[in-house]
Amino acid sequence: MKKYSEMSKEELEKELQTLKGAYEDAKGKGLKLNMARGLPSEEQLDMEADFFNTLNPQSDFFSEAGIDCRNYGELTGIHEARQLMADMMEVSPEEIIVFGNSSLNIMYDTVARSMMFGVLGSTPWCRLDKVKFLCPVPGYDRHFAITEQFGIEMINIPLGEDGPDMDMVEEYVNNDPAVKGIWCVPKYSNPTGVTYSDETVRRFANLKPAAEDFRIYWDNAYTIHHLYNGKEDKLLEILSECKKAGNPNLVWKFCSTSKVTFPGSGIAALSASEENLQYVKKLITIQTIGYDKLNQLRHVRYFKNIEGMHEHMKKHAKIIRPKFDLVIKRLGEELDGLDVGTWTDPNGGYFVSFNSLEGCAKRIVGLCKEAGVTLTGAGATYPYKKDPTDSNIRIAPTFPPINELAQALDIFTLCVKLASVEKLLG
Amino acid sequence: MKKYSEMSKEELEKELQTLKGAYEDAKGKGLKLNMARGLPSEEQLDMEADFFNTLNPQSDFFSEAGIDCRNYGELTGIHEARQLMADMMEVSPEEIIVFGNSSLNIMYDTVARSMMFGVLGSTPWCRLDKVKFLCPVPGYDRHFAITEQFGIEMINIPLGEDGPDMDMVEEYVNNDPAVKGIWCVPKYSNPTGVTYSDETVRRFANLKPAAEDFRIYWDNAYTIHHLYNGKEDKLLEILSECKKAGNPNLVWKFCSTSKVTFPGSGIAALSASEENLQYVKKLITIQTIGYDKLNQLRHVRYFKNIEGMHEHMKKHAKIIRPKFDLVIKRLGEELDGLDVGTWTDPNGGYFVSFNSLEGCAKRIVGLCKEAGVTLTGAGATYPYKKDPTDSNIRIAPTFPPINELAQALDIFTLCVKLASVEKLLG
Repeated sequence: MKKYSEMSKEELEKELQTLKGAYEDAKGKGLKLNMARGLPSEEQLDMEADFFNTLNPQSDFFSEAGIDCRNYGELTGIHEARQLMADMMEVSPEEIIVFGNSSLNIMYDTVARSMMFGVLGSTPWCRLDKVKFLCPVPGYDRHFAITEQFGIEMINIPLGEDGPDMDMVEEYVNNDPAVKGIWCVPKYSNPTGVTYSDETVRRFANLKPAAEDFRIYWDNAYTIHHLYNGKEDKLLEILSECKKAGNPNLVWKFCSTSKVTFPGSGIAALSASEENLQYVKKLITIQTIGYDKLNQLRHVRYFKNIEGMHEHMKKHAKIIRPKFDLVIKRLGEELDGLDVGTWTDPNGGYFVSFNSLEGCAKRIVGLCKEAGVTLTGAGATYPYKKDPTDSNIRIAPTFPPINELAQALDIFTLCVKLASVEKLLG
Repeated sequence: MKKYSEMSKEELEKELQTLKGAYEDAKGKGLKLNMARGLPSEEQLDMEADFFNTLNPQSDFFSEAGIDCRNYGELTGIHEARQLMADMMEVSPEEIIVFGNSSLNIMYDTVARSMMFGVLGSTPWCRLDKVKFLCPVPGYDRHFAITEQFGIEMINIPLGEDGPDMDMVEEYVNNDPAVKGIWCVPKYSNPTGVTYSDETVRRFANLKPAAEDFRIYWDNAYTIHHLYNGKEDKLLEILSECKKAGNPNLVWKFCSTSKVTFPGSGIAALSASEENLQYVKKLITIQTIGYDKLNQLRHVRYFKNIEGMHEHMKKHAKIIRPKFDLVIKRLGEELDGLDVGTWTDPNGGYFVSFNSLEGCAKRIVGLCKEAGVTLTGAGATYPYKKDPTDSNIRIAPTFPPINELAQALDIFTLCVKLASVEKLLG
C-alpha cells in the first residue's frame, strides 16, 4: 500500500469513499466495545477465585505478631503486609505504610496534606501564590486531574524512550522554588510503556531542588506487570538511589495490588524515607484509626511472598499478552506503510500508546465512539486534557475478550485511516 | 458507709491507710488490663466467623445491577450497599455514598475538603482568619483531634440529658459566621450515653446559621447499638427534619459497621442532601476510582437486610450487656453513698461516663495505670484534652473478658476512693 502522504488528491478521494463505505458498514453492526480504561478482564478476575477462600470461618485471624486483624490497631499495617509490599516495591518494611484499597487515594492525600500542612515543616501550599508540578507527557490522566483540582499549575515535560527530558526537569526543579513535584510512572509508563533508564533514575535522585518540599511522585503502578515476552524491563530502585545521593526525603513511592488481585479491593502502599513516613504517620493517625487489616491478611496468605506474586503475574500475562500481540499485529497489518501513525510495543503495563497524524486524535476517538468503540478521550494523556498536537491516543486492550478486541481494532484502524485521509484532503 | 465529705480528718486518715494498703496489694498482682478504647471483644469477633464464608470461590461477584464487584467502578457504592446503609441511617439510598472502612476517615476528609475547597461554593476555610467548631462536652476525643489538627478553634458546649445546651448552640451558630460546625454523637453519646431529645433534634434542624457553610457533623456511630435492656432509646432522624425545616443542606451524617462487623474492615457511609452529595462526589471522583465493593458485597450478603443487622446486634448485646451490668453493679457496690462520683447507666453504645470529685480524674487514671489498668486518658473527652474540672473519665468495658473487667473495676473503684480521700485531705 502506498503512503497516504504520497497519494494524489484523486487517490485520496477514492480511498475516502472506500473507507466511508466500510465505516458505515461498521456502524451498522451496532457494536458496544470498550478500550477506554486499564481494567483487568473478567477472565483474569475469575482466575482469583481461590482468593475468596484465603480467610474462611476456620481461619485464625491473627498476624504473625499476634495482632487480631479483626480489631482496631496497627495504623501502618501488619508486619507481613508491610514486608510483602516492601518486596514488591524493593524497599525495607520500615519504609512502608500499608494504606487502604487505592494508591491513587494515597497520592491525592499526599498532595492534600502538602496543601494543608506543608511537608516536614514547609509552608502549606495553600498559602503560596503559585505551586507548580512537572508532568511528563503523555502521562496518566488521573495524576493530572489531582493537580488540576488543587489549582496546581502543570508544566508539560516531553517523555522519551529513557524517561522525561531530564535537562528540562533539572532546569525547572533546581531553579524554581514554586516547582513542588513531578508525576512519574517510571516503569511500563502509562500510556507509552517506557521504563526510565538507570541514568534517568540517577539524575532524579541527584536533583538539587530549589524547594525544600519538592518531591518526586513515583507511581510505580506496573512494577511487576510484565507481559513475560522474554524482554522484561528493569528499573533502578529510586529510594536507595536517593539515599546514596544524600537526598533520602526526595521521593514518595506509590504502589498497589489493584491489578494484581482486584481493582478496588487490593491493598496500596506508600514508601518513603523514615523521616517522610513519620510526618505522614503523625497526620494520618488523626485521619483514621487504621486500614483494612483483614484484607492485608488475605493478600499475605494468598501470595505467601513476592515469589508467589510473580508466579501469579505470569498467569495474568498469559491472558494479557495475546491481547497486546493482537493489537501490535493488527496495527501493523492495517497501518504499516501508510505513514498515518506510530505506536508502542511495550514489555509490560496496561497500554499501547498510538500517535496519529497531528490534529487527528480527537477525530479518531469521535469516529470510534460513533461506531460503538469507546477509547480514552483524546487529550486525556495531557494536563488540562490539552494535547498540543492532538495526536496521542491511549489504547487499553486488557478488558475486552479477545474476539471483541479484534472487532474493536478493526474499527480503530479504519477510523485512523479515515481521519488521516480527511486530514490530508484538508 | 459514711460519705467521705462528712468524715473527720482522723476518719479520712484512717481510710487513707486502709486504701493505700489495698492499693499496694493490687499493684503487687502485676495486672495488665485495658478499659481504654471502645473495642469489641474477641468473643464478639468470634461470633462473626460466618462472615468469612459470605464470599467464597463458588460465589458470584456481581451486584444486583450486574456490576462486577471485583473490578473498578461504582464510586458511590453498589445499590444494595447504599440501601443497607440507608436503612441503617434511616434515609434513602440516593442520600448515601458508601466509602471505605472508616467513618472517622469520612469526617476527616469532609473537614479537609471544606478547608481546601469550601462547601458548595463558599470560601475555602484555609483562607479564613478564624474557623470555629462547637464541641458538646464531654465528647469523642477523635473528633476533637481532627479539628485541632486543622487549627480550628473549639468551643465547649455543655452536654446534658437531652443533648447539647441548645440555647448556647443557637447563640453561636446563628450569630457568628466563623462557626462552621458542631460535632455530635446524637445517640448513646460517646462517652455519656445520652440520646438527643426530639426537641433538640428539631432545634438543630431549625438553626439559621450565620455561615452558609456551617454544617452539623452528625456522627451516629451507635445508631443500632442498643444494649437490649428493654429501654432502647429513639432518635429523631435529622436529615428529614432538616428538609422539613427548609434546611436540607444543614447536616452531614456519618455511620459505619465498624462495631457491627469488624473495626477496620467494615463499611462506612456519608448521608446528606443530594446537593451536598453532588459536591462531595465531584471532589472524590478525583481522589479515588472507587471504594471496596467486594467488602460492600460481603456486608450485604451477610446481613441480607436491616432486620438481619438488628438480629445480629441483639447477639452482640448478649455479650456486651453483662459487662455494662457489671460496671453499674460494682460502681454501686463500692461507691454508692460515699459521695465521690456519679456515673451513667446507658441503654446502648460503648461507654460508661464517670465524674469524680473535681480535680481527681487525672489522679485516678494515673493510679489505675500504675496498678496495671489502662483507662482513656483523663481530659481526652474534652477539646485540647483539657477537662476544666478534671473530673470526667470514660470507661470502656467492652473489650476485656468479664473476669478481667471485674478485676479492673476493683482497681478502678479503689483508685477513685483513694484519690477522693487524698483530695479531701487537701
